[in-house]
This record gives sequence, C-alpha cells and structure tokens, in this order.
Amino acid sequence: MKTELSNVKALIFDVFGTVVDWRTSLIADLSWWGEQNSVRADWAGFVDAWRAAYFPSMDDVRKHPERGYVILDDLHRRTLDKLIADFKIGDVSEADRDYLNRGWHRLKPWADVVAGLTRLKTKFTIAPLSNGNVALLTNMAKNAGLPWDVVFSAELFKHYKPDPETYLGAAGLLRLPPEQVMKVAAHNGDLHAAKALGLKTAFIPRVTEYAHLQNRDFRPDGEWNIVARDFNDLAAQLGC
Amino acid sequence: MKTELSNVKALIFDVFGTVVDWRTSLIADLSWWGEQNSVRADWAGFVDAWRAAYFPSMDDVRKHPERGYVILDDLHRRTLDKLIADFKIGDVSEADRDYLNRGWHRLKPWADVVAGLTRLKTKFTIAPLSNGNVALLTNMAKNAGLPWDVVFSAELFKHYKPDPETYLGAAGLLRLPPEQVMKVAAHNGDLHAAKALGLKTAFIPRVTEYAHLQNRDFRPDGEWNIVARDFNDLAAQLGC
Repeated sequence: MKTELSNVKALIFDVFGTVVDWRTSLIADLSWWGEQNSVRADWAGFVDAWRAAYFPSMDDVRKHPERGYVILDDLHRRTLDKLIADFKIGDVSEADRDYLNRGWHRLKPWADVVAGLTRLKTKFTIAPLSNGNVALLTNMAKNAGLPWDVVFSAELFKHYKPDPETYLGAAGLLRLPPEQVMKVAAHNGDLHAAKALGLKTAFIPRVTEYAHLQNRDFRPDGEWNIVARDFNDLAAQLGC
Repeated sequence: MKTELSNVKALIFDVFGTVVDWRTSLIADLSWWGEQNSVRADWAGFVDAWRAAYFPSMDDVRKHPERGYVILDDLHRRTLDKLIADFKIGDVSEADRDYLNRGWHRLKPWADVVAGLTRLKTKFTIAPLSNGNVALLTNMAKNAGLPWDVVFSAELFKHYKPDPETYLGAAGLLRLPPEQVMKVAAHNGDLHAAKALGLKTAFIPRVTEYAHLQNRDFRPDGEWNIVARDFNDLAAQLGC
C-alpha cells in the first residue's frame, strides 16, 4: 500500500454509478412493471430522461435555499410524474407511482461490489456518501446486501454533493480529519471536490454507466491516490 | 405475532444497557489498562462515577442550547478528566486519555444480542437510536459485530433522548410513520417517551446493568407491545 495512505481509516463511496448500476436496474424494474400491467413504453428512454433531470433538480434545491432542502425521493417523484405524462403511460395509481419511485431503492450493485466491500470492511470503516436520502440508501443496502458500517446521505447535511458540507460532514461525524478519509467514485467531478477539501481519492471507472450516452469519466482526469479497475482491485491495492 | 405489530417495519434500539453491557466492559477495559500501566484503582467505583455523570451532563447540554450541542464523546471526556484527578490516578498522557475515553467505543454486547439482531435483520430494518455519537456507535458496531442497517444517533438531531426530536427524527429519516417503528429498550423511561409519540415499544429487562446499584427497570412499568426476556425471544415474538 502507498505510504501516503497508511493513515486512511474510512472509505466513503459515491453510490449511483459507482456502487449500483442504476440504468440497467431501472430499465429492468420498469419493464417488469410494464409487463405486469400491460404497459408498453420506451423504458430505456424513460430511465435516461429520469436521470437527466437529476443534476438540474438538485441545482434547483441549491439555488433556492429559502424553499428548504428537498430529499432525492421527492425530486425523483416530481420527475416521475412529469415523465408518466410525457411518455403517455396512461393512468398510474398513487400506489404504483410510489412503487415505481422506489425503483431507486431497488438498484442492483455492479458484480464486484459486495465482494470488494466485504474485503474493505475488514480494515476500514465503509459508508456511502450519496445524494440519495437515508431511507433510499438503507433500503438499497438491505436489498443489495451492501455491508455498510454507517450510512451518510446528503439528507443529513441538507446539502447535495459536491457541496463541501457533505464531504466535511461525513468526516466530522466519523471524528476523522479529511486526510484520513478516502472518497471512492466513478466520477472525476466528485473526486475533484473531495480532494480540494483534503480527502484522499480513488477512481473506479464504470464506463458503461450511461451506455451509449456516456460522454465522460472513461478515465481518470486528476491526480487520484488510487485508480482501480473495480472494488476487488481497490481492496487489493489497499492491502485487504 | 400480535396483529397490532403487523405494520412494524423498523426497530430502533437503545444501546447503553440494552445492547451493550457498559459496566462490565469498562471495568475490564480500565483494569487491563491499569495492569499494563501499573496503575491500581477502584475501577468499578471509577466506572460507576463515570456513568453517574451521564444524565446530568446531557441535562446540562439540554438546559444551555446557547452553548451548542456537545457530543457524548466530549461529555465523557470532561468527566474522565475530572475522575482521573478525583481518583488520584496520577499523570495520564493525552494519548492515554483519548484511548480510555474510547473505551465507550469498545463496549461488548450482551450474549444474546448478535444472534438476536441477525435474526431480526432478516425481517426489519434495525438501527441504534442512542445518545452515543455517530463515531462511537460506528466503532462499537465494528468492534462488537452489530449488524445495523443504519446508525441513528442523538448527534444527528442535536438533541439527546428522551427529547422527541430523536424518536421522530429517526422515523423521519426512515420515511416511516411513528407507528411503524418500534423502540426496543431495557429502560421504561425511554419507552414512555417513545410511546407518547406513537411508536411501538418492546421492553427487554437487563437487571444486572448497574450491578448492586440497580434501582429501577427490573420489570416493565407500562403497557408495552412486547416484553421479551432477551433479543432472541424478541425475534421469536416478532416471527423471525
């Protein structure tokens, strides 16, 4: 293990894209619901549109603090209601809308994640640091078997990543200085924000995250402490 | 399982006394340190005095909101420094004081806890709801093998139990109405506070918690939904 990493005590993980394959999971989830309910639609397009609203919807929260913080479940739901109309899905009950929105709680991990986290957990405190709300992340962990030690969410800090309050908030709750905490992400932007605050960084490429729409994060674009091909490689590089 | 409990989705646990045997653990922890450092003292008396400062120190935080919230690690440390003087322990380095204070992170569970939680986790979201701070609870879980799904601490709500913000805060983060959350505790007072807010309640007696100083909580004193002899019995009564 690199000497500069000998003081790292905790790893905090980006979730959507880094831990879970949200696109494949949601397309399957919606397609299943469509089959059960005799609804046909361009579910891949639906999911891509749902995700495309992600950053703008968080920006809207960031730009309007006077409206108060809005959790991701509620942002997802606003977009879902709009897309059900836009994609002409027809009548969808409140119970079904709630079920569909909770598709984000049922996302499945990339194949290396559970094995890699289980190894990393033997040596480090492992936690998500995600824009997902606490209930979303907690339900996801139960569904997917993610062995987190503790769950950190933007909801706890009333700020979305990449706001500094999230990274420093997680380190603060762990009572660790930033340099003893490593951010793990498939997104260079997340790591730039973490590094600027003194955290250590690990980049794991997930080049199929957005499928044909992927236009970034094929490779590291910063001086990250670790570049690993997947979570098992990360565990190996960290001496687990 | 009782019909009234069929909607319970999550169990939130008191920790000090209910999950971990703080008194026996700390006496052993301090005695070990004393042996290693050739310090002899009345460690049982020391631990009882440490714990005796617990409620007054939280009351002090509650009565002085203008000073800001103080986490339990820091309250423990203030008492520790005082007791090192009172018990004439001699010179204790900063590193040793920090180590001793983290004895609260190393508390050991009662013998039925890990097996019982593992069963309960198959059917419910399980989490501590404790006055311990997040780092304390997270480190304790790693040391003791407590398989929490998520960690709830008074620190997240900037209020100590039995303030309502703690119980309602945990239910809120889970996105559950209070009646779908059950508080599990060895202390009737904790359950009275939870029940008043609409939570379900389970009482698990821990009649040796305070050893010869125990003067309450030998038996249930309210209409709790469940009274169980230990965590395995709780799991059985909840159909796990």
